[in-house]
Amino acid sequence: MKVEGRHFRTIWTEGEGPQERLRIIDQTALPHEFRILDLHSVADVCRAIREMWVRGAGLIGATAAWGVWVAAREAAHLPADEFAVRMAMSMEALRVTRPTASNLVWALQRQQKALAGLSGAEAVAAAHAEAQAIADEDAEFCRRIGEHGKRIIEAIAAKKPGQTVNILTHCNAGWLAFVDWGSALSPVYAAFDAGIPVHVWVDETRPRNQGASLTAWELGQHGVPHSLIADNTGGHLMQHGMVDMVITGADRVTRCGDAANKIGTYLKALAAADNGVPFYVALPSSTFDFALRDGVREIPIEERSADEVRVMTGALLDGDGQAGQGTASVLICPENTGARNWAFDVTPARLISGIITERGVCAASEDGVLGLYPEQR
Amino acid sequence: MKVEGRHFRTIWTEGEGPQERLRIIDQTALPHEFRILDLHSVADVCRAIREMWVRGAGLIGATAAWGVWVAAREAAHLPADEFAVRMAMSMEALRVTRPTASNLVWALQRQQKALAGLSGAEAVAAAHAEAQAIADEDAEFCRRIGEHGKRIIEAIAAKKPGQTVNILTHCNAGWLAFVDWGSALSPVYAAFDAGIPVHVWVDETRPRNQGASLTAWELGQHGVPHSLIADNTGGHLMQHGMVDMVITGADRVTRCGDAANKIGTYLKALAAADNGVPFYVALPSSTFDFALRDGVREIPIEERSADEVRVMTGALLDGDGQAGQGTASVLICPENTGARNWAFDVTPARLISGIITERGVCAASEDGVLGLYPEQR
Repeated sequence: MKVEGRHFRTIWTEGEGPQERLRIIDQTALPHEFRILDLHSVADVCRAIREMWVRGAGLIGATAAWGVWVAAREAAHLPADEFAVRMAMSMEALRVTRPTASNLVWALQRQQKALAGLSGAEAVAAAHAEAQAIADEDAEFCRRIGEHGKRIIEAIAAKKPGQTVNILTHCNAGWLAFVDWGSALSPVYAAFDAGIPVHVWVDETRPRNQGASLTAWELGQHGVPHSLIADNTGGHLMQHGMVDMVITGADRVTRCGDAANKIGTYLKALAAADNGVPFYVALPSSTFDFALRDGVREIPIEERSADEVRVMTGALLDGDGQAGQGTASVLICPENTGARNWAFDVTPARLISGIITERGVCAASEDGVLGLYPEQR
Repeated sequence: MKVEGRHFRTIWTEGEGPQERLRIIDQTALPHEFRILDLHSVADVCRAIREMWVRGAGLIGATAAWGVWVAAREAAHLPADEFAVRMAMSMEALRVTRPTASNLVWALQRQQKALAGLSGAEAVAAAHAEAQAIADEDAEFCRRIGEHGKRIIEAIAAKKPGQTVNILTHCNAGWLAFVDWGSALSPVYAAFDAGIPVHVWVDETRPRNQGASLTAWELGQHGVPHSLIADNTGGHLMQHGMVDMVITGADRVTRCGDAANKIGTYLKALAAADNGVPFYVALPSSTFDFALRDGVREIPIEERSADEVRVMTGALLDGDGQAGQGTASVLICPENTGARNWAFDVTPARLISGIITERGVCAASEDGVLGLYPEQR
């Protein structure tokens, strides 16, 4: 997608041979600064995932895949047996950076398979090819999600001719959460580009404000009309007919259609069900965890630092409300107040109207999911 | 309730005769500074309500009542007919400060009745007496809400001996929202003071963060264990058995039991219903609007400034994460992002387990409400 008119992916390499380096957009600096970082070592890559310089299901997977290439390059001088040990350690370090997103484990498993029995330069070349394939596939699958999801938006638009289709989304599942296009926002971009009048209600998504800082920013860069709202607002909007559909992404979806996504998604799904608003979850197949059935009981939920709740960072405003003096952090509660911070919740399949994947749209049920992915039966 | 061991109400007068002045706690300065302000004129009182130096259903009512006394004092030198005109104008100015809370209109109606036919010093004395009566009654009714609500907490505690009762609340309906004690938090204080082990999940309550800044502060002052959480978190906690009951306050409740409260309350009520968690709304009778039936359709919902969503204020932290340099405001979205900001939503009676009032606990239904308030039949 585009940043000030220039095409970017969220992760890419630049240069050739030994000079080739891995680059990312530092998402912790957005929306106030567009900053590109180089990841030189496996330690850098782990830190980028753990500290959420990169985040989002697809991008976590792609970054881990590129991290394996970085690891292979670091270890390429070692004899084959030592290389294998070092690679196993690096993959484990990458695996434990975040616990909830399926894509992380999925990407590492693909790399493991691609590198089986290889070492040295051969392994480096294989890791590079597999990381590039994973990244390209992520972008292509997200593009297809956009095409399938666009049809749902078109159908809603057809029922209210001349009127805007209001779509609510939670967190950021746009191109910043993937390599390109995004999951939840890909249908929005596809509909907007096709001339359908859309408007997006952007949940700010506390505590890390990915809606306010990332979704609002990327929709703004693409010119899609949108309004930022507090996460508390969606129920009121749905009660008053101001939401035509909800689309969110997901971090892990079970074979029965239960979906782990950013904390608070479940509350929006409840409100959608209570008001007859269709609620869709959009994801590439890499986000499925076909081994799990009951999401509420089986999906591990990450708990993060209390300071993500207690402290808010943004562009410092002067007395006239003007930015331009860099960023600052403010404490929003008493100094001795403790906080708890779970990053995800699970929306049961019964609340989900449909799952949008690169293969099409299916019901949120085992039959629905396996209908699209019969090889997982 | 107490602030560093000293008893305070949220609004009171100090001094005698012409020196008597109206004082409030400036709630926009909490939790980082405990600041007391004098309200010298009706304009001051209107500004205090509109800009939320004082807020919360009961306190808005009490402040408006004291505002009528300030208005009467300002106009006391006028002849009776001019006095009446001036008072009508002042009451209208007070009435339009906030649209949703019933207590505001209710307090002004009580003052109108108390002042009927009076002017000059007689009117001033009558307004003073009525404001004091409204404030005292608010404190006493909230104390009784605490006694009635405590029995519900006791019953839950009896079912899990030796274990903590986890109570989730949204926004601030503690003593800061009333003259004293509070509505939703009064049962919590009563249970805590009776030795029942309680722990409160405090929704931060975006966009104005009344949970983070006020509820966390007043629970901390009283020593009640609590944890701050993002508003998105409650559903996850309820799915995992970590919430025994929800208690919120209300800004307006219809005769059928529909409850307008801080935006986001409806989402918690949906999650409570989905997980079999009892959901109570606590309020003094001044919060009922017996003229209304269907809350979603009939209760006016205030829309406030977009900057309450876009900009976050708190204690400025230095590079080591230490406060002590005053407060600052930060912008949390792109500079050109628009936001919408509805302040309340309506929780339908069907989602409410019971209403706790100064007269006892009733079902959230017309029969239930009128059972406690038969004079409204």
